[in-house]
Amino acid sequence: MNDVLDFVSVRLDDENDELIILDQSKLPNDLIYHHYKTKEEIFKAITGLEVRGAPAIGIAAAYGIYLSIKHLNQKSHKEFFDVFEQNKDFLASSRPTAVNLFWALNRMEQCLMNNKEKSISEIIGLLKIEAENIRQEDEAVCHAIGVNALTLLTPNMGLLTHCNAGTLATAKYGTALAPMYLGHQQGYDFRVFADETRPLLQGARLTAWELHEAGIDVTLICDNMASIVMKKGLIDAVLVGCDRVAANGDTANKIGTSGVAILAKNYNIPFYVCAPCSTIDIQTGCGDDIEIELRKGEEITSTWYQKPRAPLNVKTFNPAFDVTDANLITAIITEKGILYPPYSESIKKLFEGESK
Amino acid sequence: MNDVLDFVSVRLDDENDELIILDQSKLPNDLIYHHYKTKEEIFKAITGLEVRGAPAIGIAAAYGIYLSIKHLNQKSHKEFFDVFEQNKDFLASSRPTAVNLFWALNRMEQCLMNNKEKSISEIIGLLKIEAENIRQEDEAVCHAIGVNALTLLTPNMGLLTHCNAGTLATAKYGTALAPMYLGHQQGYDFRVFADETRPLLQGARLTAWELHEAGIDVTLICDNMASIVMKKGLIDAVLVGCDRVAANGDTANKIGTSGVAILAKNYNIPFYVCAPCSTIDIQTGCGDDIEIELRKGEEITSTWYQKPRAPLNVKTFNPAFDVTDANLITAIITEKGILYPPYSESIKKLFEGESK
Repeated sequence: MNDVLDFVSVRLDDENDELIILDQSKLPNDLIYHHYKTKEEIFKAITGLEVRGAPAIGIAAAYGIYLSIKHLNQKSHKEFFDVFEQNKDFLASSRPTAVNLFWALNRMEQCLMNNKEKSISEIIGLLKIEAENIRQEDEAVCHAIGVNALTLLTPNMGLLTHCNAGTLATAKYGTALAPMYLGHQQGYDFRVFADETRPLLQGARLTAWELHEAGIDVTLICDNMASIVMKKGLIDAVLVGCDRVAANGDTANKIGTSGVAILAKNYNIPFYVCAPCSTIDIQTGCGDDIEIELRKGEEITSTWYQKPRAPLNVKTFNPAFDVTDANLITAIITEKGILYPPYSESIKKLFEGESK
Repeated sequence: MNDVLDFVSVRLDDENDELIILDQSKLPNDLIYHHYKTKEEIFKAITGLEVRGAPAIGIAAAYGIYLSIKHLNQKSHKEFFDVFEQNKDFLASSRPTAVNLFWALNRMEQCLMNNKEKSISEIIGLLKIEAENIRQEDEAVCHAIGVNALTLLTPNMGLLTHCNAGTLATAKYGTALAPMYLGHQQGYDFRVFADETRPLLQGARLTAWELHEAGIDVTLICDNMASIVMKKGLIDAVLVGCDRVAANGDTANKIGTSGVAILAKNYNIPFYVCAPCSTIDIQTGCGDDIEIELRKGEEITSTWYQKPRAPLNVKTFNPAFDVTDANLITAIITEKGILYPPYSESIKKLFEGESK
């Protein structure tokens, strides 16, 4: 395997009080690492999509809140907790859709709560360990998702993916791309089709880049070509990541995912959502309860272009995500196993098993 | 109505032996008219998409072949016919999918054949009239399609369209956009959603531009947002143009159209194809028989961008069209009336009526 998997999207440099972020907004043209020290910088890195992908955002937020309170050991417990809460709320407000962001910050808060009797210095040390654990666990989770997904695939399959749920979006391996990397190691010879994923081109810039770097057979298409490649029989399965799975299996993921799912159903192609359990939000009943982030129209009319390619002041609608109805999803592949419909039951069972 | 309808994509300046073409590849940034004298220039204007849209291509080809033989009146009849045939084959090879190109050239040839006993000068004069007729008839056809389509629509509807089947693509009014212009004149207050239509952005650059110029409420979306706007209940009907309709109703149109049709069916939204009878090709049995033009991958990876937004040398697949299955089409709206399934029968009936 090529060392594309050695690229790390988010890395803590604790000695220098820095979070080192691979700027995904500049790929594939430039490989730039930013060194951020403040929560404001990290907030901006998340909103500016320098770090993106639900798991990677969670990791960045966990490290971010750690760095933001690391040097507060002179404070009283009350002051320390207050600052922690403020910083948590601040970082949580960076993006509304991906649940991992809140999940990671809540986990950091839980670590704080569980250790609130300890000294501030001890708590800070434990928060660092917790953030590291979140990163390491994500790597293990992605690997397990890849292993589980691979059981549904066979060599030489044509696979379609949307957006980037790859190693760049996670600690390592990715979610939807994990079985592609693991399959590649085992000589599966997948043919992958990557939707370019407008408007921000995560498929063209990130997925095509990381698969190409790894020597995996990848073909870049425009989003509106998914139908013709399916019709031509080139696609045996669709694999996508997700930003949030509701209790009934409805899934928020990058804008366009629901359309791909409808096409897959039309062409009788299995549609798999690769989801760390941390993206399953049983507090969210169904897709309608998921807030969908709306972004600026300039992303459609101007970003990347030499000059705007739409009339000035034309109205736009630019949702960053959409919700794929549970009934369009063949299976949800988690690190703990593969969930099948009815998801209300299989998801409930998964979490009951956890709480035992 | 705004004078957007006064823009003319293709105009003959017979005095100067020129075809004046509004360069659609430069819109909406620059409004540039090219003055072309040779068939090579006109060929390049078609392949380079300076003139595009099935009807407009047909008009350009008709004028083009006229200009290419206009000054051959010193030739013998045999020489004249030979040159005509060569030029016809040359212009016909510019783009493979739109049937109007061949239809217009065949009609010019038929005019020649019907008058082959006449003097070369007379034939040239008749060919000019035939080309003018093709243009004028297209305007009348588009207007009639608009009138017919409007009978299926009601005020305040949300309409979605893909690519550009507007006044720019035709002599005037467009096909799919004709009912929008006619409805606008009658105060229908449509809300139009325009798919940007990757990779060449005809929706963003042309459809959004011409509707916006005309004062019609238009919202630009990325192709992959069609699903969410349908799901949100914003779309009451889809209207698209077409490049070729097969005898069974399968329809080739801009890449992505088949996906929009599948989404519309999923959301129970009527999907209308606006088709001049000249795009119905009863020689083509079904969609599988339609040759789909494949274009360069650079259109996906590099066109419009400041620098390429995909890894160097990544594989691409760039079909310019796809085929929408007849069973996804609610109705085919022609200038002679509205065709309903089963299309094999309704199309047959239409042409039988014609030959009577």
